[in-house]
Amino acid sequence: MADWQLVDGGITAPKGYQAAGITAGLKASGAKDLTLILSETDAIAAGVFTLSQVRAACVDYCRQRLQENFSTRAILCNSGQANACTGELGWQDATESAELLAKQLNISPKGILLASTGVIGQRINMDALRQGIPQLVAAASVEGGKDAAEAILTTDLVPKEIALETDIEGRPVRIGGIAKGSGMIHPNMATMLSFITCDAAVATHLWQEMLARAVNKSFNQITVDGDTSTNDTVIALANGQSRTTAIREMGKNAQKLEAMLTEVCQYLAKAIARDGEGATCLIEVQVSGAPNNQAASQIAKTVAGSSLVKSAIFGRDPNWGRIAGAAGRAGVKFHQDELSINLGDICLMDNGQPLEFDRDAASNYLKQAAAGAYLKEDTVLISLIIGNGSGQSTAWGCDLTYKYVEINAEYTT
Amino acid sequence: MADWQLVDGGITAPKGYQAAGITAGLKASGAKDLTLILSETDAIAAGVFTLSQVRAACVDYCRQRLQENFSTRAILCNSGQANACTGELGWQDATESAELLAKQLNISPKGILLASTGVIGQRINMDALRQGIPQLVAAASVEGGKDAAEAILTTDLVPKEIALETDIEGRPVRIGGIAKGSGMIHPNMATMLSFITCDAAVATHLWQEMLARAVNKSFNQITVDGDTSTNDTVIALANGQSRTTAIREMGKNAQKLEAMLTEVCQYLAKAIARDGEGATCLIEVQVSGAPNNQAASQIAKTVAGSSLVKSAIFGRDPNWGRIAGAAGRAGVKFHQDELSINLGDICLMDNGQPLEFDRDAASNYLKQAAAGAYLKEDTVLISLIIGNGSGQSTAWGCDLTYKYVEINAEYTT
Repeated sequence: MADWQLVDGGITAPKGYQAAGITAGLKASGAKDLTLILSETDAIAAGVFTLSQVRAACVDYCRQRLQENFSTRAILCNSGQANACTGELGWQDATESAELLAKQLNISPKGILLASTGVIGQRINMDALRQGIPQLVAAASVEGGKDAAEAILTTDLVPKEIALETDIEGRPVRIGGIAKGSGMIHPNMATMLSFITCDAAVATHLWQEMLARAVNKSFNQITVDGDTSTNDTVIALANGQSRTTAIREMGKNAQKLEAMLTEVCQYLAKAIARDGEGATCLIEVQVSGAPNNQAASQIAKTVAGSSLVKSAIFGRDPNWGRIAGAAGRAGVKFHQDELSINLGDICLMDNGQPLEFDRDAASNYLKQAAAGAYLKEDTVLISLIIGNGSGQSTAWGCDLTYKYVEINAEYTT
Repeated sequence: MADWQLVDGGITAPKGYQAAGITAGLKASGAKDLTLILSETDAIAAGVFTLSQVRAACVDYCRQRLQENFSTRAILCNSGQANACTGELGWQDATESAELLAKQLNISPKGILLASTGVIGQRINMDALRQGIPQLVAAASVEGGKDAAEAILTTDLVPKEIALETDIEGRPVRIGGIAKGSGMIHPNMATMLSFITCDAAVATHLWQEMLARAVNKSFNQITVDGDTSTNDTVIALANGQSRTTAIREMGKNAQKLEAMLTEVCQYLAKAIARDGEGATCLIEVQVSGAPNNQAASQIAKTVAGSSLVKSAIFGRDPNWGRIAGAAGRAGVKFHQDELSINLGDICLMDNGQPLEFDRDAASNYLKQAAAGAYLKEDTVLISLIIGNGSGQSTAWGCDLTYKYVEINAEYTT
């Protein structure tokens, strides 16, 4: 099926990219906290950002840069301080960060995009950042992908990276990506970030459209507890270094590239949901038969985000009534006598009628699925059919555990 | 300020009402599980029900009765089985329940309203119900209010009841109410129910309008975790037995009655939020300066429902960035440089600028407020000003604790 293969190298797998991740002293823990992703030549950039009314300075900064349509050379990301709710001084810090990096790279500040993650209300530790910038630039290399994947993390347990390769008219084209976030939210560092590199040559508007669609099928379909962030950012660069024919409009080549971009985004999105705070497994919710894809998406996300469903999965309890309840309150009209619910291959409700099912078998499915017995991953599959429409969608979440409460209650600002 | 006084008697405090709550054997635990609220004479009824697409049979049954505008004599409520997602057979059970009670009371089945709460997907234990009905009717009395308040509970820790009295043109008028629900949701028994009695004489359409407005300022403003139910029901009866002038349109008397009805609903709603699963305190979120009340309500509910905010309050952590983050993603446009946030009397953010505040004092406020040092109740007060508009609203929630996860994960269907 898949028209691509997995390759090594993550964010620096595509041609013409370098990266670095260093400890500059922004985090008290001494963990890596400053990240650079560098395109050796001018790249086009597409971005998708938080819709929150309360936004970090870096989000407004990137939106301005992308509107002005400047070529991008680098992404600078600090972790430790979110630089959100920091007022005018926060904006000055963001601007100075870009200027410092631009000077060190000897390029225009307009070629730099910014991201921050950390405690909301805290400004960037600028002393540490100023001292770190020269070291960061010196560390940039083609081998630096793994360091970058680590340095963007806050309380994530595992780095999240992937690179895929396909061919376009006989030449290899790659997309690499890294991401952070233990779900849509984080205890003190409430942010989901993803950076994606690509060496295809593609028109800017098309790349932005592709990214928006891919994000809608991936990062926008995950939920840990509905708390979105002030800093959520996905930035995708494309630098043309694969030397393939430029892709200027939709067609065979564009579809191939978009499919691979979507796969990269979905892989990273699932990795975020799986690494959700305190989670023991990934929950995949498939909805079909909806009037349209949007309606299906709404139901899938509501089920994946339901605290009751998430708690039941943690308890390995096939309590399908909670799934029906969540679907019913999703804000989408459907007839309850057309609702069917499956857990893995086990049908629990068919056309609105509860079925006699083997509770032990259903509970066993949950235990085994969560342990990775199916799909080769720790994934519990819930599927719903809500009618005869053609709309379908998939959403991902994770279970709700004691550990989630511990992480979020015991942290003290 | 208040134009009413607290009186004893709960649901049977108003003139002309009797109630009963018995153990009929629907619950395996042996707790009370069958409730009757009886008006000695014909009463008008108003109802507000779940908006879920997946509804219990009793919800559809009540909606039909109210549309047909029959006089109401009794409310029958079973706890133990939700009779939701039970298809055609569930509908037959509901109809039979009403017929059995009507026969015992020697009235028309159309004078009976129904409510159920318990496990979704389970039909009512009809054998137990059939045997219980005669005993239930025999037990009905003016002293039965407390039994009724207990028999509607599922996993609630405390019964929730209140009665208030005012005077209308020199004659006493009372409203009594009972409610159940550990928040909007329940582990296996996902339902919020409230029954309200009143002895005023009031026109049906006006009573329905008053109830709808009161519910919007009370039950619709509480959240435990966003999971609404298949069975949510508020029914209010008014039987005219106070012998006061009939209230047919808005005016001084109607306003007095509506204010008292709103107070009853808010008291019961706060009691539900405070009894939220695993909760240690009530959280009250006040929002002002919004473009309109609806916008203020949306922000207040989003903050009160944020898992991050709820976890922080459990940890007694003044992490105001989470409050700002939740406000920002509520779907209401505002300027972040006009946002102010207070915890009790302590200002944490003023017009978009984070303030230096005494963290120990803020944490102490949380500890003391949760312990009931202010407001004479275990209530943490969060207030937000989001601009210069006249819109305002208050919402209530509770903190998110280990116990919540335990209750919802360790229950097995």
